[in-house]
Amino acid sequence: MEFIQKYHDAIEQYIQTSLPGGPPLSLYQPIQYLMSIGGKRIRPALTLLACEMYSQSHQLALPAAYAMEVFHNFTLMHDDIMDQASMRRGQPTVHQKYDVNTAILSGDVMLIHCYQVLNGYGSKSTDILKCFNQMAIQLCEGQRMDMDFETTELVTIPDYLKMIEYKTSVLLACALQTGAIIADAGEDEQNHLYAFGINSGIAFQIQDDLLDAFGDAAMVGKQAGGDIIQGKKTYLYLKALELADTKQKDALLSYYQAGSTTDPLEKVEAIKKIFVDTGAKEYALQVRDAYNDLAKSHVKALTVDDDYKKHLYALADFMAARKM
Amino acid sequence: MEFIQKYHDAIEQYIQTSLPGGPPLSLYQPIQYLMSIGGKRIRPALTLLACEMYSQSHQLALPAAYAMEVFHNFTLMHDDIMDQASMRRGQPTVHQKYDVNTAILSGDVMLIHCYQVLNGYGSKSTDILKCFNQMAIQLCEGQRMDMDFETTELVTIPDYLKMIEYKTSVLLACALQTGAIIADAGEDEQNHLYAFGINSGIAFQIQDDLLDAFGDAAMVGKQAGGDIIQGKKTYLYLKALELADTKQKDALLSYYQAGSTTDPLEKVEAIKKIFVDTGAKEYALQVRDAYNDLAKSHVKALTVDDDYKKHLYALADFMAARKM
Repeated sequence: MEFIQKYHDAIEQYIQTSLPGGPPLSLYQPIQYLMSIGGKRIRPALTLLACEMYSQSHQLALPAAYAMEVFHNFTLMHDDIMDQASMRRGQPTVHQKYDVNTAILSGDVMLIHCYQVLNGYGSKSTDILKCFNQMAIQLCEGQRMDMDFETTELVTIPDYLKMIEYKTSVLLACALQTGAIIADAGEDEQNHLYAFGINSGIAFQIQDDLLDAFGDAAMVGKQAGGDIIQGKKTYLYLKALELADTKQKDALLSYYQAGSTTDPLEKVEAIKKIFVDTGAKEYALQVRDAYNDLAKSHVKALTVDDDYKKHLYALADFMAARKM
Repeated sequence: MEFIQKYHDAIEQYIQTSLPGGPPLSLYQPIQYLMSIGGKRIRPALTLLACEMYSQSHQLALPAAYAMEVFHNFTLMHDDIMDQASMRRGQPTVHQKYDVNTAILSGDVMLIHCYQVLNGYGSKSTDILKCFNQMAIQLCEGQRMDMDFETTELVTIPDYLKMIEYKTSVLLACALQTGAIIADAGEDEQNHLYAFGINSGIAFQIQDDLLDAFGDAAMVGKQAGGDIIQGKKTYLYLKALELADTKQKDALLSYYQAGSTTDPLEKVEAIKKIFVDTGAKEYALQVRDAYNDLAKSHVKALTVDDDYKKHLYALADFMAARKM
């Protein structure tokens, strides 16, 4: 997207000149490693855009934008341990390349480093940190819910929506609000930006669930039906369970039972058919679009130039409608 | 100690009413568990004492004191994973009672919760957080150094002193300074309190090394010679290496070599003899006392009532001279 491209160099340069290098090298090198293997830098770009929208310059927000990206990478470093993920952005995860203890401790330092940076905003630091702290707590709560859902018999759709809001949306929302705080934007503006981030993030996650089942594996870049094979309780699964008749429900539950011996490909096809037949797929598409529309309504309410708004509209559509 | 006793009820009550309870319970219960299984609450008592010294009341410092104790327990929760410790305060560690993922994530939440609390001090928050952030970074660096020392051939005594300063002293120093900041104490007072914490902490750790080798196992409450059996590079070991003649040095290095098959008790006795014969024990006692004296000199320089000073003198002596 254009606005991410626009800020790309500024963000990369700020990261390179600001990441602490140690000693001890064994503490700081893993941080530099993870921060250097890529990532789209969406979150820092949102902070810079929000700041520029209200002050015609992104400069003041660079440290905060950097902190958002460091925080995002902190969550990846710790989540990858918990999820036993061995690869990230096509490279070994930190606990895989180094060890679990390194990923724990270097992650801790990243989180503290974020606070060092955000505490540098003088009288604005209190508001910035209030927003950041709430977000960080919710992100941990979302990760915990996600872990708990694996062993929870009855996950409701409101539970699921809360989990994805906490795990995905709140950081986008906080990244935007932080930029607005730095630029002295009014409370209404801050709230609309925050709500945009929340709703856009939910649309993104529902689309992610849809792509996993119905996306083109080559375009999505991961195994089609991976969530189904892993027995993950996605929006599609939960909605299908709700809409299913007795026979469909029994089939779904038996396929998702631990130790099911059905051939994976056969299982994916059977379940995709249930997602379609119950109307869950159609429903998910509509809900995704509803969240996307809601996100855009908050952009419309902003009192900024249309030139800025178009970036947020483009982001919303990108997040809600990546190719199937 | 008297001052810890004095604040005991206030601290416990504040902990009980302030710890977040969730949902999700699976995130917050492990925190309540660790915080409820005891601990001397030295750090929060230091914050309260420092505040009372300059404002005749400890009340304002209660939230910050609580944050110091939560932070201390956060480091325990994560360090216990890294050290593969199964017991803490006579109870199972969090990763042992629950699992590693729980100890990682609940620890993360504790750290963020500290920042929520410390961000509630209005215009003083910036100074408080500056002190806290530096301490938290150094504590991680100290833990990393400690881990690295296990596989480092040549650990120098300055390296070791820096490691124990970071791992033990800086939190005591920060707890004191934070109380002083809250009570609007001047910079000189803050610096003396901080230096008291640093030096007292180092004396404490050298005494800890001495106790491990020469303490009465029954009084110390852990296996005598545990550090020696584990091959830990303590102050005594490093000083003995420095003072040893060729024969003593060869003996020390061979006993500490990985895979040494000597009977543990025999090894402990042989090494204790080297610690005595080289003069390392005597040297360590003198250095411990020198740090204790230095700590006390900073108490002497404070401009507060002698009634308050006597608590800090008592603490210094407690930390430097627990019974052998």
